[in-house]
Amino acid sequence: MQVITEYLREHTPKVTLTSYIIDDKEEFQTGMKRPAVVLVPGGGYFGVSDREGEPIALRLLGLGYHVFQLRYTTRDTKNETDQDMISDQALEDLATSFEYIHAHSDQFLVDTKKIILMGFSAGGHLSAMFATYGQTEAFLARRDHSKAVYQPACLVLGYPVVDYLEMMRVVDASASSDLQNFWQASHQYVFGTEHPTDDQLREKSPITYITAETVPTFLWHTVEDGLVPHENVLTFARVLAANCVPYELHLYQTGVHGLALSDETTMGEASHVNMAAQTWLPQLHTWLKQHGISIAHV
Amino acid sequence: MQVITEYLREHTPKVTLTSYIIDDKEEFQTGMKRPAVVLVPGGGYFGVSDREGEPIALRLLGLGYHVFQLRYTTRDTKNETDQDMISDQALEDLATSFEYIHAHSDQFLVDTKKIILMGFSAGGHLSAMFATYGQTEAFLARRDHSKAVYQPACLVLGYPVVDYLEMMRVVDASASSDLQNFWQASHQYVFGTEHPTDDQLREKSPITYITAETVPTFLWHTVEDGLVPHENVLTFARVLAANCVPYELHLYQTGVHGLALSDETTMGEASHVNMAAQTWLPQLHTWLKQHGISIAHV
Amino acid sequence: MQVITEYLREHTPKVTLTSYIIDDKEEFQTGMKRPAVVLVPGGGYFGVSDREGEPIALRLLGLGYHVFQLRYTTRDTKNETDQDMISDQALEDLATSFEYIHAHSDQFLVDTKKIILMGFSAGGHLSAMFATYGQTEAFLARRDHSKAVYQPACLVLGYPVVDYLEMMRVVDASASSDLQNFWQASHQYVFGTEHPTDDQLREKSPITYITAETVPTFLWHTVEDGLVPHENVLTFARVLAANCVPYELHLYQTGVHGLALSDETTMGEASHVNMAAQTWLPQLHTWLKQHGISIAHV
Amino acid sequence: MQVITEYLREHTPKVTLTSYIIDDKEEFQTGMKRPAVVLVPGGGYFGVSDREGEPIALRLLGLGYHVFQLRYTTRDTKNETDQDMISDQALEDLATSFEYIHAHSDQFLVDTKKIILMGFSAGGHLSAMFATYGQTEAFLARRDHSKAVYQPACLVLGYPVVDYLEMMRVVDASASSDLQNFWQASHQYVFGTEHPTDDQLREKSPITYITAETVPTFLWHTVEDGLVPHENVLTFARVLAANCVPYELHLYQTGVHGLALSDETTMGEASHVNMAAQTWLPQLHTWLKQHGISIAHV
Repeated sequence: MQVITEYLREHTPKVTLTSYIIDDKEEFQTGMKRPAVVLVPGGGYFGVSDREGEPIALRLLGLGYHVFQLRYTTRDTKNETDQDMISDQALEDLATSFEYIHAHSDQFLVDTKKIILMGFSAGGHLSAMFATYGQTEAFLARRDHSKAVYQPACLVLGYPVVDYLEMMRVVDASASSDLQNFWQASHQYVFGTEHPTDDQLREKSPITYITAETVPTFLWHTVEDGLVPHENVLTFARVLAANCVPYELHLYQTGVHGLALSDETTMGEASHVNMAAQTWLPQLHTWLKQHGISIAHV
Repeated sequence: MQVITEYLREHTPKVTLTSYIIDDKEEFQTGMKRPAVVLVPGGGYFGVSDREGEPIALRLLGLGYHVFQLRYTTRDTKNETDQDMISDQALEDLATSFEYIHAHSDQFLVDTKKIILMGFSAGGHLSAMFATYGQTEAFLARRDHSKAVYQPACLVLGYPVVDYLEMMRVVDASASSDLQNFWQASHQYVFGTEHPTDDQLREKSPITYITAETVPTFLWHTVEDGLVPHENVLTFARVLAANCVPYELHLYQTGVHGLALSDETTMGEASHVNMAAQTWLPQLHTWLKQHGISIAHV
Repeated sequence: MQVITEYLREHTPKVTLTSYIIDDKEEFQTGMKRPAVVLVPGGGYFGVSDREGEPIALRLLGLGYHVFQLRYTTRDTKNETDQDMISDQALEDLATSFEYIHAHSDQFLVDTKKIILMGFSAGGHLSAMFATYGQTEAFLARRDHSKAVYQPACLVLGYPVVDYLEMMRVVDASASSDLQNFWQASHQYVFGTEHPTDDQLREKSPITYITAETVPTFLWHTVEDGLVPHENVLTFARVLAANCVPYELHLYQTGVHGLALSDETTMGEASHVNMAAQTWLPQLHTWLKQHGISIAHV
Repeated sequence: MQVITEYLREHTPKVTLTSYIIDDKEEFQTGMKRPAVVLVPGGGYFGVSDREGEPIALRLLGLGYHVFQLRYTTRDTKNETDQDMISDQALEDLATSFEYIHAHSDQFLVDTKKIILMGFSAGGHLSAMFATYGQTEAFLARRDHSKAVYQPACLVLGYPVVDYLEMMRVVDASASSDLQNFWQASHQYVFGTEHPTDDQLREKSPITYITAETVPTFLWHTVEDGLVPHENVLTFARVLAANCVPYELHLYQTGVHGLALSDETTMGEASHVNMAAQTWLPQLHTWLKQHGISIAHV
């Protein structure tokens, strides 16, 4: 295996794409182009979480997928000279990543028709924005390549932010000032203000851009998530359904925000281990096989 | 094990409650009261499905639960002399079942604090109505026992009808006259008319009666369900969330209506086997253990 | 489902065969003949264990098998007037059970080509004796039916006694007089003496009768079993291999004697729950499917 | 993650140790020393198989283990100037690997008390020789470090050669000249002759060196293995048992030689996918947790 880290922006050493490329072998599966996962960890646009990075990459490699882990622009990693909104810069980082993968698909033996875009929490927001808004003319006009280069085969979202309006409705109704303060701080990096208007919330919400062309989507969340209210996934699901987008949704009752793999490999504290939610990855694997996005010959 | 079938109504031989009672043993777990499942198969209120009956009962018995399978009043099983709406009669059948279980709890060694109410399709409608509307004064006034007798510990719903308004919205928008005809026929037995008003739809919808006291609920459905549109579960989930009712929801993308166990044991045709959806039962078992509704000492 | 208990011997109320027969349904799989399991619990020929009885039957029913649970002749259940050795009487009970199943195969819808003989501990001894010695002329001469009636499709053994010579070699070498006393007492019911000769040990050992015709066999045991040393399964496996009998063997390191299902459903004490050994049943199910002894259409 | 390939011998570019080192993270599990696997693929001492290399490494990394994959001296990779027997050179390669891991344990954060030695086929022979003969004075005298440096915490063997005498007994009895020719050719690299004597077979057999100090061992094999007869594992198991070495053994009935992960990730041909044998890895993981050789806090 090769592990190659590339810088995506000049003078911005922490914004990187790390390619985990499974070796091609002479003995078997020689020359086989593999499906790949673009992995986008969360972190509230403050930083990029380690718990949703390499441990998940390793599990996916074990299933036969190449993995490209993105460390995108956030408060902690931004280049001070860039004046764009941080969430907009992050979106460009993701676009650059797709360009990079396409440019290296022959070298790395990537099947570019089978690229899975997978994001968690804020990385779920970023991934879902890219898979929806990122397919609009408004966005594509800024990039040099054709639409196909930026199109994943499917979208996988773990406890994501996909509907800011609905999410803030729940947050505002809650009694927790900690929670409200967290989101105000995060809003600075997504909206440039602590108090976005409804129009702004809508503009930065993936739900706004769902169409009948949106790619098949796999979502999971926990009902007890105390940071990203799961209700925002329910509204997202309804709009997917209304647009006849194939999707699968698993809402586990128990579990804190940020479960990652929900087992010991991503355990920072005891609450990160959750037996019910551990099933998301095998369930996802079954779903990917059903969509033919797998090396499995089923 | 004992298998005992009781008639719930006079002169109505097909309306029955079958008790599957695990033997008490001298050698181990002697005298242990077990959790139990009240199992309510579907059938659109035309009949009661076999595919959601005994095979599921057997699987639950294997996990250590007593099972009570209800064959309730439907078009095919009704007594012609009873003038009540069929769905109302079915609700009374379920109430009678709970009374029976409480009356026999010492004999059968049932832990009445751990009764799971599990329904599929129309049986999911019936179960959810009982767990919500069945807890209201309006309903309880008709029965002789206290509220506690009719209260399950939790509710488990497979591809249920829980929000008629939302469901009919999707059905009416569909291009399928077969689908529309199916529901008009079924409406006769729930509403007494093929064309219920919105108020009627609301009155017979479990979603209408959700409160903060509604018991923890586990739901599953398939997005591709062509008979009971899954959207009606999404709205139900939202109201559970709004009432802070603990719940878990699994929406598998693929799979026809009526998957039952989704494997060979309930296979009437090839489409009844679905690898993704087979996980609903182990997932439920984990959830029940988390709620302490299990013989597992975890 | 029907649960029917038949007496196998006159004036011997505890020697019974309990048939658990899955209902034939009009709606699906109508008229389908099912594979069946003859279930033989252990108990050292002192009695018949409950922990290896109904809980295992229920799990098998859940997979779609009819089950016939045998409560055979032991010290505690014997009829005082019968002068045969208890283990020989038990063998006759098993033969009678096979006759009963064949006689009722049309009524119960049993596929007599797919009868699984499953025994645990002493019941494993009895089952293995029946599947080997029970196929000899010496034995068959005593019975009224043709050989085919007594032939299972395969043999499943959990922590069985299959090679008395090897087992007693380990027992005698052990420092435990408790263990030695246990076996001396049990020997009374198998050999009619506390101190059988090597020839006697050989005569009552299934390993002695393995031939190339012995049916495919699935075995499991725990290495730490302190009552039935697992070494006796290793020698049995070698003789199966030498006779080219297809077999599968799982030797879990940890776990006391008598694990049964290894989970809470058969838990008499904490040591009866063992996560590693819980896999024997799904592993067996895969093996049975590979042999076509299943309702699964694979 | 880092992937670092080191040359173990001068002028021998194909004899390497590849370290797959999981990154230490600031966010969680900081500074945690991890258990590690020394992974030794098979290849009959002709070469080193790719199918038992990286794909297995990736799966283990996903469970939280560092992995060190050894490409040892074989016919295809040997340095012509070294006059030692190839299998002896391979043993030295393994010793060098353990020295390397110990020397880098602080840098790589390896818990040297939890090193798993895992080998397949000929790599299983090599691993088992190292874990037994490699602990003798005869071997240790050649190396510079103390015994503890060469001692794994446990041994994991997939379809290994562990008893040449027993294995050749079965091979010689077989009617297959292909099989016999294969082993004669392989013997050149283990014994320096196509026709080793019994004493030679014994001398190069791990079974010869089992003692009460031999580390806990996990073995799996398939009964239908047509290249390495599984009987040689049965004799190995007996000697482990006789020495009270804790062990676990899974003998799957079906499956060709060289199943590796038994699924699509190591599939060179259709027969390499085997549902029954796929369970070896989760079963091993449970066993490793029972032995405390895992990052799981159980």
